[in-house]
This record gives sequence, structure tokens and C-alpha cells, in this order.
Amino acid sequence: MLFNNIHTPTLLLDQTKCLKNIQRMVDKAKTAKVSIRPHFKTHQSHEVGRWFRAAGVQQITVSSLRMAEYFNADGWEDITVAFPINIREIDRINELAQRIQLNLIADQIETIQFLKEKLQSPIGIWIKINLGNQRVGFSPTDLDAIRAFAKDIKAARNLHLRGLLGHAGQSYGTRNREDLDAVHTQSITTITHLQSALMDEFPDLSLSIGDTPTCSTASTFPGIDEIRPGNFVFYDLTQWEIGACQLEDIAVAMACPVVAKYPDRKEMVVYGGGIHFSKDRLTLANGTTIFGLAAPLYKTNWATPNPAHYVRSLSQEHGVIKASPDFLAQYEIGDLMAILPVHSCMNADLMRHYKTLEGQNIQMMAAR
Amino acid sequence: MLFNNIHTPTLLLDQTKCLKNIQRMVDKAKTAKVSIRPHFKTHQSHEVGRWFRAAGVQQITVSSLRMAEYFNADGWEDITVAFPINIREIDRINELAQRIQLNLIADQIETIQFLKEKLQSPIGIWIKINLGNQRVGFSPTDLDAIRAFAKDIKAARNLHLRGLLGHAGQSYGTRNREDLDAVHTQSITTITHLQSALMDEFPDLSLSIGDTPTCSTASTFPGIDEIRPGNFVFYDLTQWEIGACQLEDIAVAMACPVVAKYPDRKEMVVYGGGIHFSKDRLTLANGTTIFGLAAPLYKTNWATPNPAHYVRSLSQEHGVIKASPDFLAQYEIGDLMAILPVHSCMNADLMRHYKTLEGQNIQMMAAR
Repeated sequence: MLFNNIHTPTLLLDQTKCLKNIQRMVDKAKTAKVSIRPHFKTHQSHEVGRWFRAAGVQQITVSSLRMAEYFNADGWEDITVAFPINIREIDRINELAQRIQLNLIADQIETIQFLKEKLQSPIGIWIKINLGNQRVGFSPTDLDAIRAFAKDIKAARNLHLRGLLGHAGQSYGTRNREDLDAVHTQSITTITHLQSALMDEFPDLSLSIGDTPTCSTASTFPGIDEIRPGNFVFYDLTQWEIGACQLEDIAVAMACPVVAKYPDRKEMVVYGGGIHFSKDRLTLANGTTIFGLAAPLYKTNWATPNPAHYVRSLSQEHGVIKASPDFLAQYEIGDLMAILPVHSCMNADLMRHYKTLEGQNIQMMAAR
Repeated sequence: MLFNNIHTPTLLLDQTKCLKNIQRMVDKAKTAKVSIRPHFKTHQSHEVGRWFRAAGVQQITVSSLRMAEYFNADGWEDITVAFPINIREIDRINELAQRIQLNLIADQIETIQFLKEKLQSPIGIWIKINLGNQRVGFSPTDLDAIRAFAKDIKAARNLHLRGLLGHAGQSYGTRNREDLDAVHTQSITTITHLQSALMDEFPDLSLSIGDTPTCSTASTFPGIDEIRPGNFVFYDLTQWEIGACQLEDIAVAMACPVVAKYPDRKEMVVYGGGIHFSKDRLTLANGTTIFGLAAPLYKTNWATPNPAHYVRSLSQEHGVIKASPDFLAQYEIGDLMAILPVHSCMNADLMRHYKTLEGQNIQMMAAR
């Protein structure tokens, strides 16, 4: 039996679903005539990266310089680090920049000044625009500052200005298609207007956007050059709740041993807690806050979960499952059940390796 | 400079504060005439374990069999795994049980039946009592079931019934001393009454309780044999908010590089996100939800944080700090700041190693 040698919480990967998710997004980008530069922070794995390469992908996004080094070691040579430049890592930047096409993002004058002095090889720079999620980037209304910043980059010997880059992360707060479409339209309008306003002085600015919710639901990206979704490789319950995927598209689930049953409370407890799933939570439309959905684990795959059976709380190693008496009655102590994660990026980051439904063990980048 | 070679988010450990936290709890247990069996899941480190040993501790609690193996490798030979027995790990249980004094907790008849068949060496068994946190354990009112369960254990060759064990985790929901004291009193009353009710048939039942909030604030533990607090070794903002420690007692902080400043928004962004801190959050008495508190990092330690400067959101690698203009003005891009964690257990579990303020690098148990 495939799962017989699982003794502790284990991250399962359905390769078939994953390959479908990859191909669907690659096809969409091709049809929409945008480049795709998928974000690899979700899977953090050479092997899954090769599945992207087999689908024709050659450019990637990562979230740290260490992750850029990890993927470069498997042959990726055009990498964007979609995190503000951390000048304390200048040695790493210089080391990578002399070997690969390294693209970084910036919105701080101090950072550019630092690079002018310390950078030893050419890199691409994307100007980060705050498309509404209020995390990093220039406010799009701050045209004078953006113009001055672009000039500063242009004047630096080793900095090649690529264009404007944004991440409309507020898409994660939407719960219906209309609001999600509005985020997509708004972010494209904002960034293309900015491109037009800068056209006189900077005629070659490319535009890069892309989060999984909007890239999964939109079919066109008018004026956009490149999209950078990442989570779609696995999807998760958050994406399902947003409406970006179906439960059947979710390509990862945790196999967790049942360690206690409490029929009176209509609950059971599994081995699988915050150190495995992270503490990401999700509030469903009915007001219930969940930390995962439970589903039967069959011989070679997992069932589509029913939202009535959910993880109601997580502590360090415990997961408490709320479920119907019928569901509970199916399980004995020591059985495994599948739990679909609220946030697959964090879940994978914690687990550090996958087991495919075909039985292959897939390693990820080493933990810190 | 001590911190000059820090380039990425790094978990700092103030050894002096940590040793004080350890000694204070050991002294309290001695004065109160209870055994202390500290929970080592918080620090997960041989080195910090040795600090406990130097303070006279010889018995420990862990949260997994793997962690029991890790600490046994450093000489610990009396270990309680305070997590329901996972029968899928019977090989590990048998391997440990033949070498050390292994104590496990149980509340499921099926589990005891399984052990009767498969266990090859003697182990201690604690009957888990649900003292109000509704996670695992017998309801204390379920006297008949507990009695039958105890009989079942007594009848098994390799199972030695130790006593009744509880964890009043609802102490984490309290926000004032009166409520916290009430949890402490209630849990002691409940478990000692249960002991009395079983005295006729089981005269030797020991009692084990202990969470960091109640063990930090209570001075007596009438009728209790053993306490098992863990988090107190480092403490964190959750314990501070509960009233179990002062901000000055918190022995860990993350050093995080500043990567962006937004004076208009009164915010800055640091390198340090959910993959470093976990997504544990805390709602302060003023209604603000925080993911950490920011404080200046001096040459050899960190300042006591001011709750006005806090982490308002975390994404995978970003932390967004809300702070006063005066605070923000002190920082340049590339500077380090200290961030005190909401939950030190999860923070340490994610980081996997410490750097002490004396510059020593301390390893933890390897990641999964």
C-alpha cells in the first residue's frame, strides 16, 4: 500500500493535478500573449521546477537570493527576486549577477545609491509600484518621484531599467468574481497609465504583474508584458474560497494520523499542527474559521473534501477536526486522513519535502 | 560589531535572560515542592537543554518521539512525550522504550489495546485529562470511563500507570490575573478531586499539570506532583499580554534588515515574514492585532519594545512595521531592527538555530 510507510504528518503531492495546473497557466499566458515568469516560492523544489521547464518555462521569480542560488544550481539563469533589495546581501547579489541574468526590484533611493557604489556586474531593475496592497512600492500617483527614481536608475552603469512591477495582493481579500475582476482591471489600468505617463522619457518600460487569483480567473492582460503567479502550481483552500480554483485542483494535502476520537464532541484529533501547516486561517462565507479541510484518503489519492469536515484549531502538533458522526465513524485510531491546507506555500515551506501519489520523494530547498 | 555579520533574518537569544527564566522556574518548583519536568519543544536545542541540566533538571517533556530521540542523544533518559500516542510510530516507541524511561499519554481504549499487542518494553502511561481546553483527554466528569481505562492499563504487562496529566491551555485565553488564577485553581481542584475519587482502587496516582501562564504566576501547586511548563525558557508577547512575564523577560528576538521606508504611511518594511515568525497573531487590549513588536537593536542587545511600534502584517518574507515618525527616522535602509515574536515556540521552530548576544551559534534539532 502506497501510504503504509507513512508514520508522521506527510505532505502529499498529486503530480497529475500539479502538471495540469502548470499547463493551464502556461497555455493561458500563450493565448493572452504575455510572458510567464512563475513564482517558485510555493514549491521551492528542483523537481517541480523541471516540470515547469518541460512546459516551456525559462524565466522564474523567487522570493530570496538564497532561493535564486538554489534554482540557479539546477540551471535556471534568468531569475527575478520579487522582494525589495536587501543591501546587507550585496556579496550574494554580486556573486549571482556575474553568472546569471538577475533582476531585482526597488523603490528606495538609498538602495540605488548603495548599488551604484557596490554593484560589480549588471543587473535588471524593476521599479516596484504599490498597486493597492499597501506593502511595498511607489504610490502610482507619485509620478514625480517615480520619474526621478527612473532617471537615477538609468544613470547608473550596472543598472538596467526593466520597467514597472506590481503585485495586487488585495486580490486575496476578495470573495466574489466581480470584486476580483475589479482588482484585475484596476491594477492593469493603473500600471498602463503610469507607463503612458512616463513614455516620453522612458519609452521601453515593460510591465509585470500577477498574483494567482487574478491570473487564474482573467483571460486577458491588455498592455501587460509578463505575469508572475506562483501559488497556482498547488492552489489551496484560500484560492478556492476566493474562487480562483476548484477543490479538485488542489494538488497538495497532508496525510495525518488519527490519534484521538471524541464522538460526543463530534471531533477527532490528528497528528498535524502549526509546525506542519502554519497558522494561516480562513473564514468561510458561513462565518466558520478553519485551518484546513479533512477528507478521506483512498488507496492512491484523496477524496474531494466536504467543507462540513474541517480543522477547527491547530496547536504546535495537534489538529482538532470537527466532523459529522458519519465521517468520524469511518476512522480508527492510527488511520490516516487527508487535510487540505489553507495556504500551500507556508505548508510546503514547513514540510520541506513531498511524497507524490506515485510514491516518489521530492526534496525542497534546505531549511534555514 | 556583534551584528555586522548578520545579513538575513536571524533569531537572537539573550542567554542571560534565558538562564534567569530557567533558574526562576526551577527555584519556584523547589519552593513549592513540586517536581519540574520542563517542556523542551520551545527551544529544541541540546545546548539550551544543558543549561537546564546545569540548573538541576533531569526529567523532560517533549512533543514528539523524534524530539525524544534528539534529546536522548544528548543524555536525557527520562522523557515524557506530551502528545497522544501515535500508534503508527510503534517501532520508534519500542526502540526508545528499551533504552530510556519513556512516558506516554493516552485516553483511547484502542491505543491501549494496540500497545498490549505490540509493545516490547515497559513504558509509563499517564491518563490524559481534559482540564478545559477541549483538545484531548477524558472529561473529568467521566469517572466510570477513566476508572475502566485505568484498570485496562494496570492489567497490561508493559504499561506502568503513572497518574493523571492535564494541560489547562485555556490559560492562554486569559488577559488578567484574576481569570488566570481562576484557571489555576480550577485545574488543581479538578485533578485532585479526580485523584481522590480514584484513590480506593488506584492509591498511587501522581498528578502532572502545567502551562507557562499559570506556572509563571502561581506560587503554590497544592496536591500536584509535577509541573511541565515550556515556553517560559524564552517567553514571548503572548505571555506578556497574558501577564505571565515582563517585556524584559523575553529572551529571543529576531534581527531583521530594513528594506523599505514609507514615512507618509508611518510604516517601514523589513526582511522577515511568515516563514520566519509564523503567522501567530495577538490582539492587544487596545484592539490592535499585531504580529510582533519592533525595538531598536543596540550594539550588544535589544531595547525594551514600545507597543506603539508593531508588526501590523506578515506575508511570506515581508514584515510591515507601523511606528511613530521619530522611530522611523532612526532607521536607514540596511539597518537591523529587533522584532519580538508573538509566539517564540513557533518562531524558533521555523528558524532552527540561534545566535546568542555573545556571538555563539546554537543549533536546534534538524527540520523535518
